[in-house]
Amino acid sequence: MTQNIYDDPGFFAGYSKLHRSVVGLDGMPEWPSLRAMLPGLRHASVIDLGCGFGWFCRWVREQGAAKVLGVDVSDNMLTRARQLTADAAIRYERADLNHLALASESIDLAYSALALHYLENLRGLTEQVHQALRPGGHFIFSVEHPVYSAPTRPGWSVYVDGHKTWPVDNYSVEGPRVTTWLAEGVVKQHRTIGTYLNLLIHTGFTITHVEEWRPSTAQLAAQPELAEELLRPMFLLVGARR
Amino acid sequence: MTQNIYDDPGFFAGYSKLHRSVVGLDGMPEWPSLRAMLPGLRHASVIDLGCGFGWFCRWVREQGAAKVLGVDVSDNMLTRARQLTADAAIRYERADLNHLALASESIDLAYSALALHYLENLRGLTEQVHQALRPGGHFIFSVEHPVYSAPTRPGWSVYVDGHKTWPVDNYSVEGPRVTTWLAEGVVKQHRTIGTYLNLLIHTGFTITHVEEWRPSTAQLAAQPELAEELLRPMFLLVGARR
Repeated sequence: MTQNIYDDPGFFAGYSKLHRSVVGLDGMPEWPSLRAMLPGLRHASVIDLGCGFGWFCRWVREQGAAKVLGVDVSDNMLTRARQLTADAAIRYERADLNHLALASESIDLAYSALALHYLENLRGLTEQVHQALRPGGHFIFSVEHPVYSAPTRPGWSVYVDGHKTWPVDNYSVEGPRVTTWLAEGVVKQHRTIGTYLNLLIHTGFTITHVEEWRPSTAQLAAQPELAEELLRPMFLLVGARR
Repeated sequence: MTQNIYDDPGFFAGYSKLHRSVVGLDGMPEWPSLRAMLPGLRHASVIDLGCGFGWFCRWVREQGAAKVLGVDVSDNMLTRARQLTADAAIRYERADLNHLALASESIDLAYSALALHYLENLRGLTEQVHQALRPGGHFIFSVEHPVYSAPTRPGWSVYVDGHKTWPVDNYSVEGPRVTTWLAEGVVKQHRTIGTYLNLLIHTGFTITHVEEWRPSTAQLAAQPELAEELLRPMFLLVGARR
C-alpha cells in the first residue's frame, strides 16, 4: 500500500499550518487555473480524490453541486474535514486510492488536487474514474510537475553570480522519489507528462487541457516571491473528458 | 520572418555532417518512437513540414504513400533533397512555414521533425495543417523538449562529486532562445508542453499520443552514451488527429 504520510503526526502538524491548509482553496496559487478548468457544477455529482480537509467538497456545494463524495486515505484529514462540514449532501469516506471501487456512470466530475503523485496504481484509479464518470463527464486534476519531482537532489542550485537553476536529472527514470517535505522519507511517484497523458488516452479519455502552472501577472504583482515559480514548473494541471 | 539558419554556410556545413544527416532516419535515435506513431501510409497523401534532405519523404513513398510534398525554407536543404530523390510522386517546395497556405482536406498525414520550434507563428501553421487534413487525418511531430530549450545557460552542470544535472530556469518564460549550435546566434522559440497541446486542442485536434523521448533498453545497450538522455528529455513527440 502507498505510504500514508498524512497520518504521520509530525507531517500532519506541519501540513495543518501550511497557508493552503489554513486558508483553503484561496491559499493555493494554482487554484484560479484549476477553477477555470472546471465544468458547470449545478446539480452535479462530484468526487474529490484525496479530499484533505474538504475545502473543495464544500466549495462545489456552494456552486450548486447536488452530491459530493470526499475520499482520503488519512484518518487525520477526514476527522478534520468532518469537523469543518455541516452538509448532509457531502459524504467523506476513507479509502486507499490505489484500490478504489466506484459505481459506474455515477459521477459528473472527478477532481484531485496534488494527490495522484502519491499513488502506485495510477492505472487502476484512472480506469475506475473513467467507468465511474457519466459520458461527457470530466476528470480534472493537479499533480506535482515531473520537472519538480525528477531531481535525485531536489533544491535550487545557486551559482556564485546569483544565477539560480533547478537541477533536473533522471527525468526519464520513473518511479519513487524519497524526499523531505514536512517529514523525512516522504515517498512520491515520479511520472513524465507523457505517461500521465497516454494513460488517460489509452483509458478512453479525451485530453481537454494541459497546463504547467505559472503565476499570473496579477499574482506576481501581489506576491513577488512567486517569481521563483517561473524558473521551473511546480504543478501540472490536466483536464480530460470521458 | 523566422531566421533561416540552414542557409548559413557554416551551419549547413556542420549540419550536413551530423549522423542524422548522413544516415537519414536510422541516424535519429528518436525515429523508432516517431515511426511507431505513424498511421498506415498506403495510398496516403503526406506533407513533411521542414523536410530537410527529404529522408522522410522518400521513406513514406517506400511505405506506399501516393503523393508526398516536402516543404522547407532552406534552399540548401531543398537542393540536396532534389539531388537525392528520383521519384515523380515526391515534390519539394520552398516555403516559410510561418506563412504556409495549404489546400483544404487534401492531406492524410502532416509530419514534422524538429522544425516547429523555429517557428514564430505556430498558431497559423497549426490552423493551416488542421484545415488541410482530411477528417481523421494525422499530425505527427517532434520538437525540442521545453526542458531542453528552457535554460538561459544551456549545458550540463557537473558537481565536484561528478553528479550531473540539467540547469532548468525560465521554463515558464516562453519566447526566443538564442543558442550556439553549429553556428552562433541560432534562434529557437521556447514553448511549454501545455502551450503545444492546448494550441492543438483549441484548433480542433484530438491528442492521440505524447512522448518525452528516452532511449530504449536496446538503444542503451548498443549506444551506452545515450544514458545521458535519461537525465533530461531532449525531444517531445506529439500525435494528434483531426
